[in-house]
Amino acid sequence: MPDYLTTCETAARAAGQVLLDWQGKFRIREKGRADLVTEADVESQKAIQKIVLTDFPDHGFLGEEEDPANAASAQYEYRWIADPLDGTTNYVHGLANYSVSLALQHKGEIIVGVVYDPVHDQCFAAERGKGATLNGEKLQVSEIVDLEGALVAASFAAGIQRDSPEIQQFVEVLVRCQAMRRLGSAALNLAYVAAGILDAYWASSVKIWDVAAGVLLVEEAGGVIRGVGGAPFDWNRPKVVATSTQALHDQLQSVIQT
Amino acid sequence: MPDYLTTCETAARAAGQVLLDWQGKFRIREKGRADLVTEADVESQKAIQKIVLTDFPDHGFLGEEEDPANAASAQYEYRWIADPLDGTTNYVHGLANYSVSLALQHKGEIIVGVVYDPVHDQCFAAERGKGATLNGEKLQVSEIVDLEGALVAASFAAGIQRDSPEIQQFVEVLVRCQAMRRLGSAALNLAYVAAGILDAYWASSVKIWDVAAGVLLVEEAGGVIRGVGGAPFDWNRPKVVATSTQALHDQLQSVIQT
Repeated sequence: MPDYLTTCETAARAAGQVLLDWQGKFRIREKGRADLVTEADVESQKAIQKIVLTDFPDHGFLGEEEDPANAASAQYEYRWIADPLDGTTNYVHGLANYSVSLALQHKGEIIVGVVYDPVHDQCFAAERGKGATLNGEKLQVSEIVDLEGALVAASFAAGIQRDSPEIQQFVEVLVRCQAMRRLGSAALNLAYVAAGILDAYWASSVKIWDVAAGVLLVEEAGGVIRGVGGAPFDWNRPKVVATSTQALHDQLQSVIQT
Repeated sequence: MPDYLTTCETAARAAGQVLLDWQGKFRIREKGRADLVTEADVESQKAIQKIVLTDFPDHGFLGEEEDPANAASAQYEYRWIADPLDGTTNYVHGLANYSVSLALQHKGEIIVGVVYDPVHDQCFAAERGKGATLNGEKLQVSEIVDLEGALVAASFAAGIQRDSPEIQQFVEVLVRCQAMRRLGSAALNLAYVAAGILDAYWASSVKIWDVAAGVLLVEEAGGVIRGVGGAPFDWNRPKVVATSTQALHDQLQSVIQT
């Protein structure tokens, strides 16, 4: 029987290859990009599902289109949680910042996670208690403790309103941190925090498939994960804050609660 | 005698290689990153200067640290304008979005420009009246005409204040466009507009070396370049707005003037 991490990597890489193959088709036919991206998404998910359920036929599977609370997969002891294309807008526009996110949950706890960036062939992988790696090389978060030296990324929900608290929080962090990025893939943002490329990332509207793998990556690379407000991160709530250090976490939380 | 574009590409690629070589040193020694980045910047500029002034010894040269208005180079009929490292913060943090920007100005007009991304080995090149290319393949801006379908990037000055008009403008565009990115390199943002990856980009605080090559790229790929307010772009003023189409330009200008 293959081990969980090997299956997870194999499936994420296969899905990434599907995304690359489909992106070639965008160049040929400019019309109907929305249809093409949906098909790419579906094919990517099929590739994942086929690999994980062949290796582990008695596991559950949660894909992007299901309701996590009511999904049939919730009854399984083990379930795979997949985002077959995280960063859809970038993918459609040809901006090279998108990924496949795949995690394995055991009795509610994520035990294995992979974020795979097919354009750069970067495979971020973590196994609970065993650390995180990028293409096999050990990952470690940065040592940044001050917001003014931090490179920070943020995501909000689509359709945000101009007077929403998220925008106010964004501006407050923007004026205090070294620089603010908006890159477009929640899973990759978390992987970058794990890799010490970003120092912090927060999001106000994530789904479990966006962040299941990334949260484990950050934790296993030595970083800090909480819900907004500093509470423990809750898979059923849409807010997540990830930082390299506890000191940076405290600063960031105090600003985004302003 | 080599042609201008060949020299421009050769020099930008050589400088990009310097940046990659120096980035290896960041991994070995975490302390003193500020010093290392300054050295990398200086060595990158030296590489450019050596190549262009060997090929064209009677040309002027404007580097990043000089005042464009008073620079001795302003008296030359031809001068090279270099940003040896655009996206310094990304470079320091290991985020793969930085570039070398190099342009040739003749009697005040940019006639050749190259933006080179060494991490992805992407060489965006343009020659006035002859179009723009990416690694030799012809570039064309997107056909997006509506802000709500547009992928937009924005830059502001460092040290921006929370009540500045730039922030208000950013929020107004954010709530109206498809998605907003902050990627961290003005030169690459312009190159991405030229390539149809981004549909629009605006910046409120650019220097001539950040945008000299990128502005030519956008124009030669069929895009629209203006100053803020819709006036012709002025090299001596720090504001630039780049879009794929005139219709998108009009929409964006009307929003950022709100």
